[in-house]
Amino acid sequence: MTYQPVMDAATLRQYVAEVFPQAGSRWSVSALGPGTVSVTMAVSDRSLRPGGTISGPTMFFLADVTAYVLILAHIGKVELAVTTSLNINFLSRPPLGDLIAHGRLIKLGKRLAVCEIHLHGQADDTMVAQATATYSLPPGDRAAGQ
Amino acid sequence: MTYQPVMDAATLRQYVAEVFPQAGSRWSVSALGPGTVSVTMAVSDRSLRPGGTISGPTMFFLADVTAYVLILAHIGKVELAVTTSLNINFLSRPPLGDLIAHGRLIKLGKRLAVCEIHLHGQADDTMVAQATATYSLPPGDRAAGQ
Amino acid sequence: MTYQPVMDAATLRQYVAEVFPQAGSRWSVSALGPGTVSVTMAVSDRSLRPGGTISGPTMFFLADVTAYVLILAHIGKVELAVTTSLNINFLSRPPLGDLIAHGRLIKLGKRLAVCEIHLHGQADDTMVAQATATYSLPPGDRAAGQ
Amino acid sequence: MTYQPVMDAATLRQYVAEVFPQAGSRWSVSALGPGTVSVTMAVSDRSLRPGGTISGPTMFFLADVTAYVLILAHIGKVELAVTTSLNINFLSRPPLGDLIAHGRLIKLGKRLAVCEIHLHGQADDTMVAQATATYSLPPGDRAAGQ
Repeated sequence: MTYQPVMDAATLRQYVAEVFPQAGSRWSVSALGPGTVSVTMAVSDRSLRPGGTISGPTMFFLADVTAYVLILAHIGKVELAVTTSLNINFLSRPPLGDLIAHGRLIKLGKRLAVCEIHLHGQADDTMVAQATATYSLPPGDRAAGQ
Repeated sequence: MTYQPVMDAATLRQYVAEVFPQAGSRWSVSALGPGTVSVTMAVSDRSLRPGGTISGPTMFFLADVTAYVLILAHIGKVELAVTTSLNINFLSRPPLGDLIAHGRLIKLGKRLAVCEIHLHGQADDTMVAQATATYSLPPGDRAAGQ
Repeated sequence: MTYQPVMDAATLRQYVAEVFPQAGSRWSVSALGPGTVSVTMAVSDRSLRPGGTISGPTMFFLADVTAYVLILAHIGKVELAVTTSLNINFLSRPPLGDLIAHGRLIKLGKRLAVCEIHLHGQADDTMVAQATATYSLPPGDRAAGQ
Repeated sequence: MTYQPVMDAATLRQYVAEVFPQAGSRWSVSALGPGTVSVTMAVSDRSLRPGGTISGPTMFFLADVTAYVLILAHIGKVELAVTTSLNINFLSRPPLGDLIAHGRLIKLGKRLAVCEIHLHGQADDTMVAQATATYSLPPGDRAAGQ
């Protein structure tokens, strides 16, 4: 089953700017497709651990916000969607530089959405972290199955 | 990074037949590629819950064995690899009929391997479950990084 | 917050006997308390891997059924509760002999229940596996919060 | 099995002050016992989401640092321990005010440590989040089993 976004990338970016006014300089939507989204994050000094690598909470944040934006793009402006669980595997030490997260919607039900997120360093093809996030969706009259 | 198998599909099937003599009639390797494997499972009556759907432990088993076979194909006959954790999301009610699992190696380090597994009904394109499995690898003299 | 069961242990056992007629000889409820339950499983030959230890799917099954029984005891006969995710960590090689699972309800909301399950060998105090299970609850008119 | 710390709480606090110089005003070790530790975090404005609740990354950070400190207290100054995976369940909306995390070591092996962490609001007994974290331990000559 392929999920279709209910808005285009420009509308999604505009909505992100309203909901996350502080996002502007930190992260942005770089691509939107059927059931998928990519988010790029500029890594600031504050995100770095001693040794110059990117901290775990920073990667958690990127995975979580990617899932949020992905769901938003596919169900519309549902501000009450909340993370119920997130499982993250740290695979390799992230290189210095920006991170890119590729999110994929693997379930969009009436009550739950499940997303798979892959984090890569932009300068490098290696996957640095993998996450699965579950969001609880507010009751509504969407037509989506299950 | 793309991982390369250290054996071909025929050798993998032969080894599976030795290690899991009881597998023969229940599941088999249907494809092997760089960093990927597919395993098909014949669903027996014993795997069914009341109502005719496939039980959770059956899907857990298929995810776990797919990860095992995937690692085996990429590091050779390492019989001591053991599952350290498995996270599984049940996405939709599986249809009656065979299940196919697509496994992907997302990290192959010196001590740990991490795999992502997607389970589909064969008659249907819907993903029925998604899992992430971590295996602990025995110490050895493989050349693999990290 | 402490959750209270809505039935006593005898009623729970009777209901388990109705819903899982095949359980009888394999597993049984050994204790029920506020927000907690214990389930004991007789390990059969079929559950053993070569080498005599208990297989992963067997431990998955025990964790999952413990969560199911725990929820059942606290919300009543709700046959439609389904597992949405289960995360299991295998900690040490289980000894031969029976397994006991201690389940604890850490959230009972209107739509989701989350349980923590600890598996021990009965002959030994070592924890052999730890799991967290999330169940989706059917819509209903229970009074439970959130 | 009960694990014993290899240092007392005062030594642990002193070491935390050296390794995390920025921790001082944000979080501190409030208790240390056999296989357990408690960490309290002062919630700053920066940790709050619109609406006044504590953000997911803040809770992730607290769970992760609690696991790190717990392992540190039980194996000594091993600066190379790294998180390999973290699974977190968000159970209820955290109240305003400080958070307290109770960590428990459920496995301390030669190569991996697994911790269970429960997060509570200090003003309230409700569990707001539950996490399981796995750390990879550097090779060494510790006497610990498995």
